[in-house]
Amino acid sequence: MSKTTKKLAVLGSTGSIGQQVLDIVNSYPDKFSIVGLAGGKNTGLLTNQIKQFHPKLVFSINKLDLPSNVQMCSMEEIASHPEVDIVVVATSGKTGLSPTLAAIKAGKKIALANKEVLVMAGAIVMAEAKIRQTQILPIDSEHSAIFQCLNGETGEVSKLILTASGGPLLRLPPSKLTNVTVDEALNHPTWKMGKKVTIDSATLMNKGMEAIEASWLFSIPLSKIEIVIHPQSIIHSLVEFVDGSIKAQLSVPDMRFAIQHALSYPERLANYELPRIEFPRLGSLTFEKIDLSVFPCLQLALAAGKKGGTSPAVLCAADEMAVELFLEKRIDFSQISEIISNTLSLHQNIDNPTLREILEADMWARDTASEILSKVNS
Amino acid sequence: MSKTTKKLAVLGSTGSIGQQVLDIVNSYPDKFSIVGLAGGKNTGLLTNQIKQFHPKLVFSINKLDLPSNVQMCSMEEIASHPEVDIVVVATSGKTGLSPTLAAIKAGKKIALANKEVLVMAGAIVMAEAKIRQTQILPIDSEHSAIFQCLNGETGEVSKLILTASGGPLLRLPPSKLTNVTVDEALNHPTWKMGKKVTIDSATLMNKGMEAIEASWLFSIPLSKIEIVIHPQSIIHSLVEFVDGSIKAQLSVPDMRFAIQHALSYPERLANYELPRIEFPRLGSLTFEKIDLSVFPCLQLALAAGKKGGTSPAVLCAADEMAVELFLEKRIDFSQISEIISNTLSLHQNIDNPTLREILEADMWARDTASEILSKVNS
Repeated sequence: MSKTTKKLAVLGSTGSIGQQVLDIVNSYPDKFSIVGLAGGKNTGLLTNQIKQFHPKLVFSINKLDLPSNVQMCSMEEIASHPEVDIVVVATSGKTGLSPTLAAIKAGKKIALANKEVLVMAGAIVMAEAKIRQTQILPIDSEHSAIFQCLNGETGEVSKLILTASGGPLLRLPPSKLTNVTVDEALNHPTWKMGKKVTIDSATLMNKGMEAIEASWLFSIPLSKIEIVIHPQSIIHSLVEFVDGSIKAQLSVPDMRFAIQHALSYPERLANYELPRIEFPRLGSLTFEKIDLSVFPCLQLALAAGKKGGTSPAVLCAADEMAVELFLEKRIDFSQISEIISNTLSLHQNIDNPTLREILEADMWARDTASEILSKVNS
Repeated sequence: MSKTTKKLAVLGSTGSIGQQVLDIVNSYPDKFSIVGLAGGKNTGLLTNQIKQFHPKLVFSINKLDLPSNVQMCSMEEIASHPEVDIVVVATSGKTGLSPTLAAIKAGKKIALANKEVLVMAGAIVMAEAKIRQTQILPIDSEHSAIFQCLNGETGEVSKLILTASGGPLLRLPPSKLTNVTVDEALNHPTWKMGKKVTIDSATLMNKGMEAIEASWLFSIPLSKIEIVIHPQSIIHSLVEFVDGSIKAQLSVPDMRFAIQHALSYPERLANYELPRIEFPRLGSLTFEKIDLSVFPCLQLALAAGKKGGTSPAVLCAADEMAVELFLEKRIDFSQISEIISNTLSLHQNIDNPTLREILEADMWARDTASEILSKVNS
């Protein structure tokens, strides 16, 4: 192991992003090593990862037989351990929030894939990162694209342009949206991702959350963030500067580009395993305006982001509940936005909330969403 | 005039680029002022520019009545004058070479629109710029795009991708290329430029020269420069990094973006007069492979660039002669490449030439091209 090896903690190592993070680590044994792993429900996979990557510290939600030299501990302990350089937050939902804050307080660099962390508590997380002078490097194709386009630029930007594939339901007439099946909603045209984020991509909730996340990450008001449909997912996002010049970042849609960038930044590592674009074979790159009436979840997200306070946390919690219920086939596709909308309309927003108030709003939203559902189903 | 006002010398102020440079200067009187102007044949325009911008120093190829406080001098004197901060080289052909070298030796920043300067004498010009630690900022949409994409990047690139509109003759069947008229060749689909560069765009000679220029400007071998047809001229060029990630710069095709960037760098100046891209209205961005058999001038340029030495200077000189003859309707379109090819095939290349050897090769090529023409026409 060389002196420049970056020591990683990977939170959410058994998820889709976590597994791809470990793929990259595996490709560059001189560049990265694993100090800690935190896995989810897939205990078998976590056990294999421990055998392969030899972490010192492990968190598991299920009971696990660990080798004697491996210590079981909390995600916060892993995230703030002295040996860790970079904490990869690849958890989903609100799980990542507390460990991310612990990592920032310990001065760790953050590679952030869990967008709810900034959507729920962007003000608190960014303020803490500023105090500790630590970097939050995005693992999300859109935010990685913007980060790369802003690299080296010192001046003001006039807008960020987030691209959206439009997901599997882009061409569906609005009348058919009620009857979308789980399989249809999971059939993403360009990206292979976890189930939760794939459904969020079908509703475009994901894009709304990304806009809120980008607003925090790049200190830019939501009003200067434009979303445009780009079905091919080749241009991952763009930045328009005040002089009217635009920079874009492109690649074949593969999350490993953004993951590797976040892990290796400011270096770029030669990687010829990743597929390259051949422009003459690319066909057309196209762009379309979003029809917000077809995507009520995007509208809800942008409104919650504009309102700020505890509303984005309520949005995330209600969405997490609703998507789970949809995946369990307990509600229709169109009920996802209804549950979120009804929960948000019952919420009394708190401006400039504390972390505790944010977590309370999250709990309140989960309870409220459940009540709404039980009334609907009764 | 503020302390941060940049003082410019504009060489080639009456040409297409020169006029647009003065448009930008006119828009930002606090940012830029004019110390020197060097104009071409259009004496009336130069006289008006002198009245409007009050330069201290003027060069004109024709006799001119100057106000008493304006001094007539050579382009080299203007380029190296102590008051000048940035020398804008917007001359065409070999005219810009000697003043550019004078400016670099005097430690001036160069804003370079005259691509022959680097095509003819890239090794000498770049070596001098390195010694004097001065910057060469490109005024060319492709090179400006690459410069912007490389900004802030420290690592190796895997390739530069120059986009080419394909010019007015892209869709013409090869059999029709012989009979292309001057008007057809001047009818560029996306860019409004001077006549010489428009014809060079029709033959794609321009793209070949741009590849050679990019190779010098960004210290990258020609083998790592790819040219791809992009008929819409929205993506001005791209950089692929070793990790496979690609950055691109985009704008509506308007030279003022590149001009303003070069003049204001590292700042970006807010400019809402320049047209902005509206992505949903953009339609498709497409890419095609170049059929080199249709564009012999591009083949000749790339071969001359690969050979190096005095060959690129011979290429430039023969092209300047041939394009002038075509514009005067003294030769057919297809004879442009024939004259250049025949001149190059008669040339005895000199490796690592001195400036004198380059200028001698230029003279030799002009004489030789004339002889070839007289034989053809006799």
